[in-house]
Amino acid sequence: MAWDPALEAAFHPKVVAMVGISSDARPGMRRGPSGANFIISFEQLGFKGRIHPVNPKATEIMGRKAYPSVASIPEPVDLVVVSVPAQALPGVLEDCIAANAKNIHVFTAGFEETGEAERIELGHRVREIAERGGLRIIGPNCMGLYIPESGVGSFDRLPKESGPVAFISQSGGHLNWFSHYGQNYGIRFSKAISFGNAYVLDSTDYLEYFATDPDTGIICMYLEGVKDGRKLLQQVRAINRVKPIILWKAGLTEDGTRAVASHTASLAGQWGIWRGFFAQTGAVPVQSLEEMAEMAMTFLYVKQPPGKRVSVIGLGGGTSVASADVCNREGLDVPALTEETQTELKKFIPIAGSSVRNPLDTGLVFRNIDDLQREVELVTTDPNIDMLIVRPHLDMMSAGNSEDASQVIDYLIDISRNNPHGKPVVLVFHSFGNDPKELEMRLRFQVELPGQGIPVYISLNAACRALFRLYEYHRFQKALIAEDL
Amino acid sequence: MAWDPALEAAFHPKVVAMVGISSDARPGMRRGPSGANFIISFEQLGFKGRIHPVNPKATEIMGRKAYPSVASIPEPVDLVVVSVPAQALPGVLEDCIAANAKNIHVFTAGFEETGEAERIELGHRVREIAERGGLRIIGPNCMGLYIPESGVGSFDRLPKESGPVAFISQSGGHLNWFSHYGQNYGIRFSKAISFGNAYVLDSTDYLEYFATDPDTGIICMYLEGVKDGRKLLQQVRAINRVKPIILWKAGLTEDGTRAVASHTASLAGQWGIWRGFFAQTGAVPVQSLEEMAEMAMTFLYVKQPPGKRVSVIGLGGGTSVASADVCNREGLDVPALTEETQTELKKFIPIAGSSVRNPLDTGLVFRNIDDLQREVELVTTDPNIDMLIVRPHLDMMSAGNSEDASQVIDYLIDISRNNPHGKPVVLVFHSFGNDPKELEMRLRFQVELPGQGIPVYISLNAACRALFRLYEYHRFQKALIAEDL
Repeated sequence: MAWDPALEAAFHPKVVAMVGISSDARPGMRRGPSGANFIISFEQLGFKGRIHPVNPKATEIMGRKAYPSVASIPEPVDLVVVSVPAQALPGVLEDCIAANAKNIHVFTAGFEETGEAERIELGHRVREIAERGGLRIIGPNCMGLYIPESGVGSFDRLPKESGPVAFISQSGGHLNWFSHYGQNYGIRFSKAISFGNAYVLDSTDYLEYFATDPDTGIICMYLEGVKDGRKLLQQVRAINRVKPIILWKAGLTEDGTRAVASHTASLAGQWGIWRGFFAQTGAVPVQSLEEMAEMAMTFLYVKQPPGKRVSVIGLGGGTSVASADVCNREGLDVPALTEETQTELKKFIPIAGSSVRNPLDTGLVFRNIDDLQREVELVTTDPNIDMLIVRPHLDMMSAGNSEDASQVIDYLIDISRNNPHGKPVVLVFHSFGNDPKELEMRLRFQVELPGQGIPVYISLNAACRALFRLYEYHRFQKALIAEDL
Repeated sequence: MAWDPALEAAFHPKVVAMVGISSDARPGMRRGPSGANFIISFEQLGFKGRIHPVNPKATEIMGRKAYPSVASIPEPVDLVVVSVPAQALPGVLEDCIAANAKNIHVFTAGFEETGEAERIELGHRVREIAERGGLRIIGPNCMGLYIPESGVGSFDRLPKESGPVAFISQSGGHLNWFSHYGQNYGIRFSKAISFGNAYVLDSTDYLEYFATDPDTGIICMYLEGVKDGRKLLQQVRAINRVKPIILWKAGLTEDGTRAVASHTASLAGQWGIWRGFFAQTGAVPVQSLEEMAEMAMTFLYVKQPPGKRVSVIGLGGGTSVASADVCNREGLDVPALTEETQTELKKFIPIAGSSVRNPLDTGLVFRNIDDLQREVELVTTDPNIDMLIVRPHLDMMSAGNSEDASQVIDYLIDISRNNPHGKPVVLVFHSFGNDPKELEMRLRFQVELPGQGIPVYISLNAACRALFRLYEYHRFQKALIAEDL
């Protein structure tokens, strides 16, 4: 189906029916997700509407009046959340049809993804009922919606704050982990959707919505398979002009394809086809949640770089060699600084044991805020350079004077926030030791700073990968826009 | 020069001369390494011999009698450590010749790596003196030796414990960081050598020593360039039969090559040639200190896998797909478990929302030690499987009962130590959240456990990469040995 405006009610529901909550449901039940957890998640997120548990064997569940069926709920239902066993799903869907409740999140799993004949057949029956009843099914075999603004969610302790990132995920686990993980990268969500086996609504339907959703500025997608590949290609190419789409296409290896079958029973596709997809759409390719988070953080907090020539400030000749190798392998150039810049740098950087070409092997500046500022100013005004990666060493900083260290850190936060001279400045902290003070700093820098919107990367590879993709995205976007004119 | 047994005295020195320590030297001097730091490092490591500072302008330095020259020291000198400015080096070397002190670590930098004509010329003079005097120079432009057993080192707070890993490094920074970093991976060193510009002794000379050093079982190398590539190739191919050689060849990109020139002024070589080198020698290729540490940990603590078919136990269908993709991309196979194993697993794993094919999407077993043991037993006895990667989720474990969690962790430590049924079992902890308890666990598992010799990897990619290389190393080793027979 195409995007149906009537699904909007599911995103901002006032009345929710929850079908399949056991009559003795209580918080903290062991052995995995249960219907009770949906109530708890909604409560934790501050859901302001009404939740009606549905269970023919109960009159009250978790302090709420229980109804024997969806049809018996005495008001229109915006969203039905179904967590009955697979065999009971057809009956519930008939009940939904009777109740004229058409927005349905089917958490229930156990269909064709099990590979068992009887369950494949059950899946066919469910599809048939959905089609007959015009049901807008999210799922089955999925965790459904996470919409912090509406207080809608399916997992424990989801963040309450909203933000500009949308996530369309074929996996519920990824939705959960990305929602949490995103906090460590300063990522907040407008809406996130886990859609599982995609009996009715597919990724393209949700994408259609996010294309014009004013709350969404960046779209992340995790896909195992897609029903209409051509439609997806056209959509992504069009939307990428306006909003970056970060796409993790999984299941493109032999064993990955088999794992997709066990998970959402989708057709995973072939790598050659998907390579063409990325080339034609400009979608930003990632291959893990970490990369997705790094990339979303990059779009959120790093300015468009004017080119792909990077300078790296670090400590150690071996590290400089490694830095240049990593930058080059990830697609960035590491040109020598201009003669003028080198001459200026040599005025305060000793020639023996240092290098002021690029990468800069000038670790001593991390012990002297004036030298550091002078160096950063020179590098970021060098016409050979489009962006800067700074790599302070935590062992050195934790061993030195802590007042000096905090001055340096404050300065680095400041320049990475303010992007002097319009050039991106990002941080990668080196940390090797076992010293408790250093370990504490490591945690702080790898979680807290990016969580506050300071672009800090866990490794130089990650930083270069993200910066190159950012550069490539903007290049592609310009080409697409030029095509339109 | 070939390996000279007389250098052995430098590795176990009783008398060390330190030339270039300023007369007002004191611990903790700012602005980087100074001669004083060599005394401090030796003291910290518990050096049991005698250190004689050499400085014509002082009679006492840091509580020790100072001599005006090496020649004036009234006993034979096993090792001279030189940290004078570059221009003063020729004079010091003449002094060493006069003193018949031939083992010399030249920390002094500032020669051809600066790119300046006058300093290139100075380098030529130094080489000429060294050759004339038959000096066994380690360096120049290097941090020299780290030999915990002898109390010899050039950095602050180096670990005192010895172990079976040798490190030959063209970079002093890498020697420092790897020595510290290694602790987080359970790595201890027999001897580590930073050799910089390699005027006399080159990597091949040190390699010759480690080939038969009884204290060394694993050899790590960081190379920027090599003088005699053919000799290195023959050596590595021969030694690899007996001791694995983990080799990081840096500077193989365009900008990396330029960075090598600024660092150790070596000829970096071309990627095509080095690819052939790895193919012919079976050296284990790595591209960063992290990979080197992961690989050394793997050789130290993971048994030889019978093949490259892996099983992964985790949580989440999306994670399973991603796992299979990562394993495949890194060269491992993820075959389905046998029908028998699947049938046994289905007796206690619910079919809906789980998968028992492979990867196993059975996160619930991390909440139930009995189920976990049963599952691991079934998987590690499955004839389709050669090794096992277990991926517990820290968020789940930190949210659950902490007694259960510690039971699970104890069990996982136990099976990874004992490799049931001779198959490697390694751990990768998933951690996404921001919860302080989870962050604390993350640190513990990513630093403490591997530091104790439990194979824990920071990511699935890292685990797969290491396991595949371990498999490849043993395969190559077998082929080499078969060739000999």
